[in-house]
Amino acid sequence: MKTQMAAARDNIVTPQMEQLLAAETVDRDDLVSAVAAGRIAIPANPHHTHLVAGGVGRGLRTKINVNLGVSEDCCNVDLEIEKVRRAVALKADAIMDLSTFGDTRAFRRRAIEISPVMIGTVPVYDAVARYGKSVPDISVDDFFDTVALHAADGVDFITIHAGLTRAAVDRLRRRPRLTHVVSRGGAILLHWMDANECENPFYEHFDRLLEICRAHDVTISLGDGLRPGSLHDATDAAQIQELIILGELTLRAWRADVQVMIEGPGHVPLHEVAANMQLQKKLCHGAPFYVLGPIVTDVAPGYDHITSAIGGALAGAHGADFLCYVTPAEHLRLPDADDMKEGIVAARIAAHAADIAKGIPGAMDWDNAMSHARKELDWPRMMELAMDPDKARAYRESSKPLDEHVCTMCGDLCAVKRSRQVLEGR
Amino acid sequence: MKTQMAAARDNIVTPQMEQLLAAETVDRDDLVSAVAAGRIAIPANPHHTHLVAGGVGRGLRTKINVNLGVSEDCCNVDLEIEKVRRAVALKADAIMDLSTFGDTRAFRRRAIEISPVMIGTVPVYDAVARYGKSVPDISVDDFFDTVALHAADGVDFITIHAGLTRAAVDRLRRRPRLTHVVSRGGAILLHWMDANECENPFYEHFDRLLEICRAHDVTISLGDGLRPGSLHDATDAAQIQELIILGELTLRAWRADVQVMIEGPGHVPLHEVAANMQLQKKLCHGAPFYVLGPIVTDVAPGYDHITSAIGGALAGAHGADFLCYVTPAEHLRLPDADDMKEGIVAARIAAHAADIAKGIPGAMDWDNAMSHARKELDWPRMMELAMDPDKARAYRESSKPLDEHVCTMCGDLCAVKRSRQVLEGR
Repeated sequence: MKTQMAAARDNIVTPQMEQLLAAETVDRDDLVSAVAAGRIAIPANPHHTHLVAGGVGRGLRTKINVNLGVSEDCCNVDLEIEKVRRAVALKADAIMDLSTFGDTRAFRRRAIEISPVMIGTVPVYDAVARYGKSVPDISVDDFFDTVALHAADGVDFITIHAGLTRAAVDRLRRRPRLTHVVSRGGAILLHWMDANECENPFYEHFDRLLEICRAHDVTISLGDGLRPGSLHDATDAAQIQELIILGELTLRAWRADVQVMIEGPGHVPLHEVAANMQLQKKLCHGAPFYVLGPIVTDVAPGYDHITSAIGGALAGAHGADFLCYVTPAEHLRLPDADDMKEGIVAARIAAHAADIAKGIPGAMDWDNAMSHARKELDWPRMMELAMDPDKARAYRESSKPLDEHVCTMCGDLCAVKRSRQVLEGR
Repeated sequence: MKTQMAAARDNIVTPQMEQLLAAETVDRDDLVSAVAAGRIAIPANPHHTHLVAGGVGRGLRTKINVNLGVSEDCCNVDLEIEKVRRAVALKADAIMDLSTFGDTRAFRRRAIEISPVMIGTVPVYDAVARYGKSVPDISVDDFFDTVALHAADGVDFITIHAGLTRAAVDRLRRRPRLTHVVSRGGAILLHWMDANECENPFYEHFDRLLEICRAHDVTISLGDGLRPGSLHDATDAAQIQELIILGELTLRAWRADVQVMIEGPGHVPLHEVAANMQLQKKLCHGAPFYVLGPIVTDVAPGYDHITSAIGGALAGAHGADFLCYVTPAEHLRLPDADDMKEGIVAARIAAHAADIAKGIPGAMDWDNAMSHARKELDWPRMMELAMDPDKARAYRESSKPLDEHVCTMCGDLCAVKRSRQVLEGR
């Protein structure tokens, strides 16, 4: 079996590429050359049979990911499966199953079965969950067997924190941070490496990882175990050291025809966002960039869908290709279904604002249609076009104006109505 | 009586400047020279007796404004007065009373009486409300008498759309927009000018305006009647023509010792926000910039607190000094008290993120304190430090983890706890 990348290098347009072309404005030849060069990834495991393939990378719409999964504190399987369905309905482009409790395999397989969008996982979490061993006792084979299981189950992309090497940890120890390591996968590997006095197994045996991923065309999302967990730690030596290593691993993966995405921060002050995007694109040779946030202040727990929409929009405008959603529950608890919805809408706003800034052809057509409906005071059309029609309708219906053409914001002073009368005579 | 600007030009440190110095990190001499040069405005009408003066401009914290007021569709006076109190409690830096119905004077005077933060108004709205005339029948004296009344009542700043001249309207007619004029004050003046075939009265009689404002030290917030109402119309000739005129009026006001702020857009795509900020600072000679949003997409009614937090944060980072809040109700209805809260928090997030980017000394101390509490897993301290402690606590308490030190997001896999154990041995 050829990976998407290998096919592109042989100038083959795969069925997955055809699916992508139907949903995007990218040109066919540009797509094939971008996949061949690694600038676009198409995470599409052949075992994920109901997948409608999408892509992540330059020239494509900015995508958004939703995290969910079963954990010890929130272990209602049906509720999480319902969240998969709802996330798809709310137009998530990808779902990461971060389950850490119970029959993780059954949940994963069910999620893959019902999801038309790409599914990602973090096999290291599952290695902790399924073997029930203390972290230092997990063997190298345990880690890789888990990766192989996920690949066989049909997972489209996996997060692997292979850049958290002993060299990077040395830099971390040399210049201590305010918030150490805030990546779950990163902290697990740090713990394992420290207790066993060994190199990161995914770095040391990276070729073994590539073999599995090539066999099932699993895209590697190179995780940022050293992403900053506070504005204070942003863009520090440990973070950038890891990014340099991820760039080196990217080239090794591409040589093996394995697709790659790079994961990025995290907590970043607004004025450092553009530089972080530029640095990733340079150090990682144009590989797609998948960011978690970035959130632009640490002080607003309960509103981190907003702090991350700010950072995500700006990151996208400067080249990020894929935004991991952040919900209002971030830093406080696992998100429930309502939190998930708030997180998805905020991430979609950020991605759409970024697409306009990036100049994705046609991105602003939607805005123009909405603005036209506004000028016409065409309320049914405005409601239809709203990103969340239900919420827009509920607002509108909760407060009816005396004049049905306007809204209660301005009432009789409606500027749209008045200026149209003056300028168009109607 | 001397205005703050006249006092600064005589090198006098006023009591209002002392109040400002107590709340900001700006140096005393820098403040005096910035007020003298117009780069900082201190809206502080001497008749607003309970005011604790604040400032707007370069080197100061980015401020946020809350709009409220009584209208025909929402005419519960007590509710709006309660909103004044709540806005102050939620740390709004300014409140604009946009009342258009009923006894507007009584409401305005009550709001001024109870508000320790600066109060702004748009006298043109009130001219429509208090005379009960059709717009074309309002006289020039009616307009100026209303301004004088607001000044005598203690209003600290007034929005005056003096830049919407016949020349600017010509440019608007020559190159039609998707959404014409979306400023209420702008549309009223457009209507008046068109029906009476006259120049904008506030432009034609600008010196009369300056006399009133100098006498009561009312800061003029030069309104952007031609702000874009859609991404499509952003940064067009009509908008920039008006901005050029506002820059000329700024110099005339400063020559009369009258303080000025400039109002700005509106709806602006992300990649045009920085240029809009730079243009204002150049064309308006460094006058403080007061922006409404900007919102970075038109398609998310119900979530415009988020679309504007994105634009506002970026605008602030690039030099905007004052953010007008936008609520989830924008484009749909008048905001209620809950919408107001959502709007205030979103605007505060944007302003704080901008302050960090601007390098306001000490702005990041708050973030560092929060991140320290996170590293220590000190939940009571995190809750105290949260921008909205009530919401953060409600989230935390709704989902208690098995291990009280962590949260249900990661449970036993908490990276903070694990990495601290490895790196600090505790």
